[in-house]
Formats: sequence, structure tokens, C-alpha cells
Amino acid sequence: MNAVPEFQRENARVDEQAVQPFPNSSRIYVQGSRADIQVPMREIRCSDTVTLSGSEKNSAITVYDTSGPYTDPAVVIDIRKGLNPLRENWIIERGDTEALSGLSSSYGLKRLNDKRLESLRFIHTDLPRKAKAGHNVSQMHYARVGIITPEMEYIAIRENQRLHLHKGTSLAKRHKGMGLGANIPDEITPEFVRSEIATGRAIIPANINHPEIEPMIIGRNFLVKINANIGNSAISSSIEEEVAKMTWAIRWGADTVMDLSTGKNIHETREWIIRNSPVPIGTVPIYQALEKVNGKAEDLNWEIFRDTLIEQAEQGVDYFTIHAGVRLAYIPMTANRLTGIVSRGGSIMAKWCLSHHRENFLYTHFEEICEIMKAYDVSFSLGDGLRPGSIADANDEAQFAELRTLGELTTIAWKHDVQVMIEGPGHVPMHMIKENMERELDQCSEAPFYTLGPLTTDIAPGYDHITSAIGAAMIGWYGTAMLCYVTPKEHLGLPNKDDVKEGIITYKIAAHAADLAKGHPAAQLRDNALSKARFEFRWQDQFNLGLDPDRARDFHDETLPKDAHKVAHFCSMCGPSFCSMKITQDVRDYAKTQGIDSLNDALAQGMQDKSEQFVKSGGEIYSKK
Amino acid sequence: MNAVPEFQRENARVDEQAVQPFPNSSRIYVQGSRADIQVPMREIRCSDTVTLSGSEKNSAITVYDTSGPYTDPAVVIDIRKGLNPLRENWIIERGDTEALSGLSSSYGLKRLNDKRLESLRFIHTDLPRKAKAGHNVSQMHYARVGIITPEMEYIAIRENQRLHLHKGTSLAKRHKGMGLGANIPDEITPEFVRSEIATGRAIIPANINHPEIEPMIIGRNFLVKINANIGNSAISSSIEEEVAKMTWAIRWGADTVMDLSTGKNIHETREWIIRNSPVPIGTVPIYQALEKVNGKAEDLNWEIFRDTLIEQAEQGVDYFTIHAGVRLAYIPMTANRLTGIVSRGGSIMAKWCLSHHRENFLYTHFEEICEIMKAYDVSFSLGDGLRPGSIADANDEAQFAELRTLGELTTIAWKHDVQVMIEGPGHVPMHMIKENMERELDQCSEAPFYTLGPLTTDIAPGYDHITSAIGAAMIGWYGTAMLCYVTPKEHLGLPNKDDVKEGIITYKIAAHAADLAKGHPAAQLRDNALSKARFEFRWQDQFNLGLDPDRARDFHDETLPKDAHKVAHFCSMCGPSFCSMKITQDVRDYAKTQGIDSLNDALAQGMQDKSEQFVKSGGEIYSKK
Repeated sequence: MNAVPEFQRENARVDEQAVQPFPNSSRIYVQGSRADIQVPMREIRCSDTVTLSGSEKNSAITVYDTSGPYTDPAVVIDIRKGLNPLRENWIIERGDTEALSGLSSSYGLKRLNDKRLESLRFIHTDLPRKAKAGHNVSQMHYARVGIITPEMEYIAIRENQRLHLHKGTSLAKRHKGMGLGANIPDEITPEFVRSEIATGRAIIPANINHPEIEPMIIGRNFLVKINANIGNSAISSSIEEEVAKMTWAIRWGADTVMDLSTGKNIHETREWIIRNSPVPIGTVPIYQALEKVNGKAEDLNWEIFRDTLIEQAEQGVDYFTIHAGVRLAYIPMTANRLTGIVSRGGSIMAKWCLSHHRENFLYTHFEEICEIMKAYDVSFSLGDGLRPGSIADANDEAQFAELRTLGELTTIAWKHDVQVMIEGPGHVPMHMIKENMERELDQCSEAPFYTLGPLTTDIAPGYDHITSAIGAAMIGWYGTAMLCYVTPKEHLGLPNKDDVKEGIITYKIAAHAADLAKGHPAAQLRDNALSKARFEFRWQDQFNLGLDPDRARDFHDETLPKDAHKVAHFCSMCGPSFCSMKITQDVRDYAKTQGIDSLNDALAQGMQDKSEQFVKSGGEIYSKK
Repeated sequence: MNAVPEFQRENARVDEQAVQPFPNSSRIYVQGSRADIQVPMREIRCSDTVTLSGSEKNSAITVYDTSGPYTDPAVVIDIRKGLNPLRENWIIERGDTEALSGLSSSYGLKRLNDKRLESLRFIHTDLPRKAKAGHNVSQMHYARVGIITPEMEYIAIRENQRLHLHKGTSLAKRHKGMGLGANIPDEITPEFVRSEIATGRAIIPANINHPEIEPMIIGRNFLVKINANIGNSAISSSIEEEVAKMTWAIRWGADTVMDLSTGKNIHETREWIIRNSPVPIGTVPIYQALEKVNGKAEDLNWEIFRDTLIEQAEQGVDYFTIHAGVRLAYIPMTANRLTGIVSRGGSIMAKWCLSHHRENFLYTHFEEICEIMKAYDVSFSLGDGLRPGSIADANDEAQFAELRTLGELTTIAWKHDVQVMIEGPGHVPMHMIKENMERELDQCSEAPFYTLGPLTTDIAPGYDHITSAIGAAMIGWYGTAMLCYVTPKEHLGLPNKDDVKEGIITYKIAAHAADLAKGHPAAQLRDNALSKARFEFRWQDQFNLGLDPDRARDFHDETLPKDAHKVAHFCSMCGPSFCSMKITQDVRDYAKTQGIDSLNDALAQGMQDKSEQFVKSGGEIYSKK
């Protein structure tokens, strides 16, 4: 590892592109039961509908907002200072944690005492906190003893997206979906959040050393979440770039961010990311542990790994991917695969196991890991080290053997009130996706599932955000709680800024399609508002209500660049005299003049016989003219 | 309509980008039972696998090829002359058609006699053909009387993709899928093709006046096909551009192309496209009919429409979208929709019906339309004029009322032995997609379904190729036979060349994912070959086996531009010492030296007990070292 500083702290600046407010949008805060519960959302204002009889107001639409204070013009951003620690008082007032007198990790201390790292280091004035002896500070623990934490209330407000403002309007119209065992209430209450956490069906990744986060929940009875991976590698990128990637990722909708750095200055890079992140941060600690033994998997051991867990827990990492299910006995099951072991963590542990002819030390030390997790409230993301790397290897014995073990480990973690989610594949053809969800629910006692795609075919390198979005949307509908994004660069190279955005938008689509199909009560509001804007030729509203207003506007400009066209009552595709929506409006206006509104009332009753009766009388009405 | 020529025939050139052979690929021809059955495919050569014990050959992979002679360096392309009419003898030797002495359409004659159009016109030396009196020249008619046409044999060879060359190799490994009532045999025979056509479960769009096509089939027991839309509009594009769009679309995989032109010189543009197209061409004749009445829907009438059908049938259009299911009585059912009628054809017919207080003339003249169709073998694509234009309107009464009528019309068409496919939606949330397929199969007697997407959410303008690819892949799996592509410009503007390619590749992904899930025997070969190449760090093979070798190579170059890296045994994402695939290969090599191959043989039997037994003995072997 090269420790020569390449980063000048004094000059560190936020990515300007990531802090622009969205068009016609405001970041608003919904007040909870106490003054310091202020739940952020994005409100998108809409213009009026112009009709023959005057104009009608269109109410603003509230959407879930992951972008943090970066899109709030009222907040002064300085990435050298980090974000406001909004949960700090909640954590302190619970009285079950204490500020430590120094770092507990020997590696953390070594880095802190290395003068050469001065210019790289975030100035972190607070010392880390830890549970007092004998205390368990996990959200699951609180939930199980009946406590509704401020985090839980915050989440309930956040998930509802102020749907109540639209009750009874045409925008509230929705199709109730059918998740695989999902059971989403019409309104999310704090008590519902608590009960889902208590059963383990959902998690709130919220390390006590990451008070800057805006709490969020991962569970199949909530909105489907997405994760974006960032991280440097031996080949490229600096600390400032990584912070910029994070702010860029949350701008477009990443609900959590995993820092998968494997290059230089991993420790310092992570500190900068966490202090500036309003979303939970996940890591794969084995990556850093491997760096500490110079990339030699066989030189890994429990002590180095344990110190790495503590080092990262005290920085504030919210969830750890732990490949404890890659058991020695399962490794030979992969030898006849077309693509062997493709998980980095999985292959590291496999190499360790084979080199030492011993059981995976993450498995043998699992209870000790739980002790660390509950002292900081770090959640498990139990890694699927044996996930399939190709269609040919999907749903095989190695994969399912590991899944059974992850189920056993879930039971152990829950004994400690430690929160758990389960990682899933990978590469799976469509007809084999559902089995993954069913087995996971069954064998892992309904712990939240967190999948990578899955990719539904292997034949499109350069387009794996799409091959995987198909699988992601489906498995999200079946009940997966969080989808790990895939960028267009998957299998080929490191994603740049455009790739990160493309991957995130693609996964927001998959997650949202799943929310609609699962019947999340607030999901369809945005679809309806956008479709209404589209139908009424309110072009600006159509752009602004979309996931990517910039691209929508740019695409429209390519064909019809003039501003006047943004209010034109025709589509840019067909020109003024050939637009189906215009013709439909004519039809509707015509129908109105012919007095068929009363007939539509009959139709609205939705009964077949009524409708046929209507058809007959409708025919007569037409013949009267 | 502005008839001032803007196009100089003498200068018409093929799009150079569309005629480059694919890297490491050859266009090959598989010989059928007679000399003039030469079925084109693309063969992709692969490099050797380098192992410790020497190198192993990797056989070439054959993929379905829609690009026509354009990618064959041995063929001289001149778009002013058109393609070789390879089916001409098959059509003539059947003895049931005759060359006409002139055009039958009065509009066609008017255009032919207009001297001002001289420079626009394709020099078409052949006069059109038509069935002799009393004859039916549809492929369905031949199939029903037990004739296996050369077209049918051609298709059988084409669909098999020389899978037999790989029987017994690791590449032939496949997961058998589960389509919704799909029943795909292990090998496609000419007799199977005939029987599917005879029942109406599949169609071969093949107008006798389009002898240039390389025959293809649309049916759910065959590979899922995709359609690309091209066509000018009042706003933009020339004849040469439209021909270029067609050649570009088929290069990337369009199985059929619809010419949806609504701008200038529709008649001449179509002629150029057809004469240069090796794939079937579809149109929506009502668009041109509307142009003939200056865009006034209420001025349309059966005579103008009939003349348009004949005009286009004699040019060689292979299928017509006909919105005969938009019945007068269904139109008011759309008045309470969020987005009314969004199909252009549907809204034109709705407007006509309401203006005249009369039943849709396409419905009342349906049998006369059948008479025209069977005289040229034009297939029906029964349009879904009342498809939903938003999630809120999915699966409503208007949509399903029309579908029932399309089922009735199918029965009438089949009485005439006219081939039929059924168009489907549109915008549908995931949980409501399957119902569309089930109703279609039930009510339209298993006629092939041809859907637009469906889009699974409305909130992502600029990304509707993706919102719709999710729905397209799913409905393809359920049994839809052809997917109409959606480009990123959907709802926003006219697609440019990049958009067309992006839309096509996205839909090839959806179609291929569906083929895998349906268990098409030849589908997984390409996935397996690509995954094997990926696992063995054969970078060039990985690129070349993908749907878009250019993009895969470019993406890899962005991170690791040097040629030396194309043979590097590590991933560009993680650098040389941190690659899971490399570690896996080490594991495998290690496993080999430890003699666990025999244990893998036990595993290969795939039985749970064997595997557990193996696991136990595996553990022992490791402890021996």
C-alpha cells in the first residue's frame, strides 16, 4: 500500500453537480412527534391544467428523497466538516452508550498516529461511541423490548410520502399488487415499523457512530431500496472522487452506498465517506483485511479480521458483508461449475479454507462477530460467496448449500438481537428467480433479501444494468427488500460518473416497478401524476416528475428545441396534426358535448351488465344527432 | 403533402456503418434440401483456452443473423438495385400467382405517373404478383393442406442454429424453462413449423411481392422476435435516412421492421425500404390513408382505405396493423381513463366512429380485407387501439373488450386461411402482465401475441427502453411471440441512430432472456460460450460473443486501454492481485492437485445424498495433507 498523500484536505470541495436542487422541486421536512424528528422529502410543484372552462390546479407531488442536505439550498455544505449528526441526541439520550477514550482498533490507532497521513485525514473531533458493558444498542433489541425509537417514527413518516394529501383524488387511484407474502398496510405506522424490526423481517442499518444518517428501512413490507457500490481500486481514484461518487449516487436515488475500496488509503477514504453520507454505508471488511496481509488470502486470520471489524464499526459503517456461509465442505461443489466462484469475498475465503484445510474462520467465530455488531449496531449482510456467476451455474447445490447455512447464522445473530439481511444472486434465468426468493424466505426465516440483479442472461456485456434490471424488478416484486445496482461497465471496467447514474436510474426503475407490483400504497401516485401531465401536454411537469428530469428535457430538445414547444399541445414525435393524445382529447370533448357523462357514471360501477346496457343506450344516443 | 423531391436516386448509398462485418465473425449459409435453400447465420470464431497442460480448442458459435447480405463481404450492395429476390422461384413454381399487367391501386398509379417524383422513385422493373383467381397463397393455406413450403424448411434450419454441433459439450448444458403453455421441441423440424402455422399458433409474414426476405417465423414455440419501428414524420428525415435506419436496425437484431412514416413521400419511401429489406416489413395503412385525406379522420372511408391496402400489398408489405377492434361501443369506455386512447390508429378510428355515429369501417369490412390479404399473403397484426397509455389504465374494460373482438376477428381471418397476430399493451404493472397473456391465448385461440413493452412504470421518461424491457422479458417468457421495441426517446422525441441501436439491443436482451426462460434449445449456447470465455479471461471472445462487441470493447478500453490487457488474466475492475475469477482458478487448480476430481464425478450425479457423502469424504481428503 502506498501511503504517500495525494489528497489535500484544505482544498476538498463538494461535487457541484451533485448539489443542484432538482427543477421545480423543494426539499421539505415533515415534522414528527418531537422537534428533532424532521423527515426530508422532495416536493415537485406542478403547473395548472388548462381546459376550455379555465384552469385547474395540480397539487404538488411528494417523493422519497435520498439526496440528503446536498439538495437543500438552505444548508451550507462543507465536506471537510461533514454533515450535521442529526441522530446524536437520540443515541445519547438512550443512555446505553458511552464515548470511548480512544480508538479500540490497533490498526485505527496506527493510522491515526501516522504523521504522513495528516493531509489525508478527516478532522474527526468526536471519539467513537460504544455500548456500555452489558448493553445491546441494536434497533432490533429496542424493537423487541417494545421501544419505538425516533428512527422508527422517522421511517414511518418517510415511507408514507404524504399520501394522505391525495386521498380521494384521481392520483390516488392504484392497482393493489401481489407480492410473495408481502403484506403492506395502507398506512405505515411507527408501531408497524417496530414490529417488522422485532420479527427480523426488516432492518434499520444505523451504526451509533454514524449519527449523520437519515434513517431508512430495508424490508419487504416497505419501499424497495437500492444500493450503489463505490470504492477505489489499485488502478484508480482518489478520496475526493469517492466522496463525489457517493454524493452523486444519493442524488439519483441510492438508498445505501457500499464502499468497496481495495486501493490506497482505504481507512481514510472511508472516514470521509461516512462523515459526509446521509445514507447507511456498507463495507466488505475482508477486502481491507486482505490488504493488510498484502493480498495473500492464506495469511488472513481471525485477529486481523476482528481488528478490522472494530476499526470500521468505530468509524460508523452501518452494515458488514460477511461471507461466513462459505464453508469448507461447499467449496468443491463449485469445481464443476462453468464459472466457479465469482464473489471476491467468497473466493478469498475459499482460498483461505483450502490453504489451511480448515473451516472458514468467519463461521467458527460467528458469535464473537455478533458481540461486536451489537455493541455498535452494525447490521449483518450475510454474503453469498458462492452465488452463480453465469446462467449455467444458477440455483446449483453450492449456492443453496450456502443459503441454508446463512439461515442457521441468521438464527444465531437474532439470538443476539443483531439485525440481518441476506445477500442473493447473481446470474439467474427468469424462470428460476422465484425459487431463490422462496428458499430465502423459508430458510432464512424471512430476513430481508438483498440481491445483485440477478442478470437474466450473460450475452450482453456493456448492458448488464439492463440484463439485471429485469431480474431485479422481478425478484423485488417477489419480495426482495434491496437491490444492489449493476452499472453498464459490469464485467468490463470501472464505472465513471455517467455509468453510476445510469445504473442508479435503472435500479430505481426496477425498485419502483416492484413497489407498484407489490402494491405499496404511495408508489403509484408519481406514475399517475406523470401520466396525467403527459396526457395534458404539461411537458415541464412530465420532465420534472420523472426520475431524470435532465435527460427527459434534453431528449425532447433534440427534436423540438424551442421553448414554445414545451407548451405545445402535440407530441414531438408526430407533429401537430398527428397526435393520438390530441385526438383523444377531441374525442373526450366531443363525448362531453354529446352528454355521455351520465353513461360514464354507469360505467364507473364497473359491472359488465351495466356496461353492456350502456353500450346499447350509447348507440342510441349517437343516432339522435 | 409536399411532393418536391429532396432525394437524388443516383446518389443513394448504403449506410457504411451498417455493412461492416462483425469482429471475428463470418456470415455462413446452411444448405437445405434443395440448392436454393441457403440459410444464413453468423458464426463467431473463438480463440483457444490456455491451460497448464497446453491449449484447448473452443468451437465456433453460431448465432441467428437478421442482418441480411449487408454483413456478407462477398455480396455487392447497391441500394438502388435492391436485394436478390431469393424467394422468387419458390413463389413462381407454386403456380398459383400471376404477374399483373399494372398496378391495381389508383393511388399507386397516380404516383407512378407523376413525373415530378422521378428522382425519388426506386426503379422497380418487376410488376407486382397476385394470386390467380380462386387461389389462396398464404403460408397458412399451404400448411393446412399439408404442404411444407421452402420457407418452412428454411425457418426450421434457421431456428436450430446448428445446435447439434455442440451436443454433449459443456456449452450445450441448459436449464429447461417453463413458458406459459409453450411447448418447444428439442429440435425444430420443417413439419413442426408447418403444423404450428396450420393451427395459427405461428405466422410467417411473407408477402409474395417481397421475395427478398429471408423467411422468419413468429410464434411462441420459436425464438422470441423483436420489431423495430422506423419511419419519417412531418418534422424530419429523408428516404435515404429511412433505408439507413432499416439496415442499422437489422444489423443489431431487428427481426421485422415497421415503417410508420407519416411525413412526405410515404409511398416512395416504402418502396425503397422493401426492396432493400431482408426482414418482413409491417405498416399501419391507416396512417397513409389519413395523409390522403389531409389528416382529417372524419374524411376517411372504406374506398380510400381499400386502395391503400392494395397499394401497399402490391409493394410487398408483409403485415398490416389493422385497428378493426376499436368498435363504436367501446370508445366511451375510455372517457374516464387517466390517459384516454394513446394508440394513433385507435384514436383515428375512434374519431371517425364518433364523427359518423357509425361502427368502425375496418370491422364492418373485415371479410373484404381478408380477401385482399390472402391474394398477396399479407398477415394481420390486429391492432390494440385501446391499449392502456398509463399504469392507471392497465387491464381495464376498454382494453379487454377490444381483445375479445380481436379474438372474433381472428376466427374470421382463419376461415380465410389468413395469418394473424394480435397486438398487445402498452403500460402494465408487473403483477398484471400475466393476465394479458392468459386472456390473449384464451380469447384469440393462441394466435401469436405481439406486444409493445409493456412499460412497467410511467416515471422514467428517457429510460422507457428499460421500463418496458422488464415487461417485455416477462411477457415473452409467458408466451408473447414478438416484442415491439421501445427506444430511450419514447414519449419525448424521434429516435436517432444511437437510440435505435439502444432500443434494439435492449429488446434483444428481453427476447433472449425470454428464450432462456422458455427453454428454447439453442438459446443458452451463447450464454455458456460467453461465460466460459469470461471465466477464462478470453477478453476478445467475451466481446465478440456479446450482442454489442463494439461497446464491450470500448468500455474495457476506458479502464485498461492497452492491447496487452486484452490477454491479461485479471479483471479490469480489480487489478491483478484482487480478482475473484483468478482466485477461483487457483482454487480449482489446487483442488485438482488434491485429487478431488473423482469426488466431482460423484457430485455430477446431482443427488443430494451423494453430495452430502462427498462433502464428508471431501473434508477427510483435505485433512490428509
